[in-house]
Amino acid sequence: MIKAAVLGYGTVGSGVYEVIRTNRERIAKNAGEEIQIKYVLDLREFPGDPVEEVLVHDFNRILEDPEVQIIAEVMGGTGAAYTFTKQALLAGKSVCTSNKALVAEHGRELMEIAREKNINYLFEASCGGGIPIIRALNASLTGDEIDEITGILNGTTNYMLYKMDVEGTDFDEVLKEAQAKGYAEADPTADVEGHDACRKIAILSTLAYQKYIDYKDIYTEGITRITPEDMDYARAINRKIKLLATSKNLPEGCYAMVAPFLVNDENPLYGVNDVFNAVFVHGNMLGDAMFYGSGAGKLPTASAVVGDMVDAARNLKAGTIRNGWSSEPANQMSMDHVTGEFLVRIKAEAKELAESVFETKTILQLPNHPEEMALLTGEMSQGEYREKAAQLTDQILGMIRIKD
Amino acid sequence: MIKAAVLGYGTVGSGVYEVIRTNRERIAKNAGEEIQIKYVLDLREFPGDPVEEVLVHDFNRILEDPEVQIIAEVMGGTGAAYTFTKQALLAGKSVCTSNKALVAEHGRELMEIAREKNINYLFEASCGGGIPIIRALNASLTGDEIDEITGILNGTTNYMLYKMDVEGTDFDEVLKEAQAKGYAEADPTADVEGHDACRKIAILSTLAYQKYIDYKDIYTEGITRITPEDMDYARAINRKIKLLATSKNLPEGCYAMVAPFLVNDENPLYGVNDVFNAVFVHGNMLGDAMFYGSGAGKLPTASAVVGDMVDAARNLKAGTIRNGWSSEPANQMSMDHVTGEFLVRIKAEAKELAESVFETKTILQLPNHPEEMALLTGEMSQGEYREKAAQLTDQILGMIRIKD
Repeated sequence: MIKAAVLGYGTVGSGVYEVIRTNRERIAKNAGEEIQIKYVLDLREFPGDPVEEVLVHDFNRILEDPEVQIIAEVMGGTGAAYTFTKQALLAGKSVCTSNKALVAEHGRELMEIAREKNINYLFEASCGGGIPIIRALNASLTGDEIDEITGILNGTTNYMLYKMDVEGTDFDEVLKEAQAKGYAEADPTADVEGHDACRKIAILSTLAYQKYIDYKDIYTEGITRITPEDMDYARAINRKIKLLATSKNLPEGCYAMVAPFLVNDENPLYGVNDVFNAVFVHGNMLGDAMFYGSGAGKLPTASAVVGDMVDAARNLKAGTIRNGWSSEPANQMSMDHVTGEFLVRIKAEAKELAESVFETKTILQLPNHPEEMALLTGEMSQGEYREKAAQLTDQILGMIRIKD
Repeated sequence: MIKAAVLGYGTVGSGVYEVIRTNRERIAKNAGEEIQIKYVLDLREFPGDPVEEVLVHDFNRILEDPEVQIIAEVMGGTGAAYTFTKQALLAGKSVCTSNKALVAEHGRELMEIAREKNINYLFEASCGGGIPIIRALNASLTGDEIDEITGILNGTTNYMLYKMDVEGTDFDEVLKEAQAKGYAEADPTADVEGHDACRKIAILSTLAYQKYIDYKDIYTEGITRITPEDMDYARAINRKIKLLATSKNLPEGCYAMVAPFLVNDENPLYGVNDVFNAVFVHGNMLGDAMFYGSGAGKLPTASAVVGDMVDAARNLKAGTIRNGWSSEPANQMSMDHVTGEFLVRIKAEAKELAESVFETKTILQLPNHPEEMALLTGEMSQGEYREKAAQLTDQILGMIRIKD
């Protein structure tokens, strides 16, 4: 019998408790021993909930109990979650987490402590909820040089873009609807501004390229400026707008960015709708692969946390599971050198000027938007785009990148 | 430095050699030590090929060399491959394979030997080529009760169905084209009759449900009877015909089958075209997940074999990696009790009789096929379908199952 503790009885924490109770036998078989939740830490009371039996309010009860070998940290945030995780690892307890903010901010230090202690700090649930992408990178795609990761890593914004597309509603309206359904939080900033996806692509890219990519260095643009007009142009060129978190490892360096992109129907990410997430990976031997599933939600995320707890249990004696995490900073390209094509929406009267500034491949003029048009540019660097756009500032109504 | 050997220098074998040479440094970093191919076994000569340096014709050279700790068996078949694998495992060498026929036929015995010897028999490449589905089942989705696996597990037939759909060609024509392109073998039986997919779903289901499913017990139907008319009806109801290898683990027992199915556009398998493979998994906590990638091909398959070699290297000291393989036979349901809906093509003159026999939900009559029509039935068991169909034998032109 392995004793475990759960830090935080919120959505994911109660999910972890439920997964372990519901699938007790299967988990015991997979782990080699039963995993029993000895403590759940939360400041609140839960009268009548079966968790009461194991609820504690003081982390030291857990820290000082030598029986507890595995901890699920599902509190979120980088405050107490950081302190508790560090103390737990220093005390020789393996920690499994869904906390992408903490992994992106302090993962380096926490993994180093785990390595020194020959235990594990595992974070499958931090990226893509139930999608087992972290273990795929760490343990399956180990014969490959990974050169691209592109994900739809935020379910809230994918749902919102899907609704804007299907229903023709605008951003504010769909945000209200998403909040009413519980898909978006009261303060939606982390989702709609791309901060959540940014932390996830930082984690995945660091593992895949085996060089440290700091989330603070990642160009991040959310979906707040996407309009129903953008959706119309996307449909006109048979593409969908997706908030992509994407990174490439090129001979000249690597880059990562989060931004809305126009994705065509040959791309496996095109069909990823609603609150689903997916991660596309390209390896130099593997070619294209994609992992698809529920990117959030209580039970899928808890399933990933519990999968990590099983792995931690299997490795109590074997020690730290090797992963590609590195403290050596990646050679990051300036965003100005990253190339691509762009859809640029301009005021109709700026047509001639815009055509003289951009090398234009196609001009789109939609009957329902007579006051404006959209140019599809040829390939250029982001820096070039910025310079050209500066010549047209007042005339530009919007820009979306085109996924190659 | 870890010494390895490759058995067979065919498509996958030469791929393994290439992956290890090309990604030497990355593989060394991931494995913790460099993996060096000391021998390649093949009966043929390869004059001028760099493999000549390490080519041997006698398996005993490899078996008797105590330096060799890891063997990649990529010969295929269940003859010499079986003998060599067994001898290698008995000699304490871990074996990694792409050989689904061998795993489906003798996996039980070979895994037991590996367990006794505290080494590994790994077979990620046996199902879905480069798609890391085996390790996902064994090491990631361990907090879940898996209750469904449905895969497009054969690239040849997926390519053929895709071409038949897009180009309107018939089976014989598209088979010739696939053979000319090297996508289908001279003797295409294993692919087009579903035998290849059958072995793969046997392996995946055994791992997922942790009960042994013998491939010989799996109902298997190929794509040889699919016609351009079937494609027309599929389009008319906005579905695509896919050869699915599918299994479910239900309270009343489990079943597995391989057959063409009509898949709707809400199913993530709908968009899996060309030679790509994909595996859909449903877990009681995870919900829906899908894994997508190159299901065959030299380098993607070799990438999966090398991923296993890295895992074998990491575990040389730790021993056998736990998986869900079981020798205990699954409680398999009779196919007669498996329920579903059916599209039944009948001669036009049989309309009244057919409607009296089947509970019909919809009748499709396509203008370009005036001599026939198709019924969409309500849900019934396969047994009921068989009985009803017997009343109409001469009138039935074809039947395809509808994926729920």
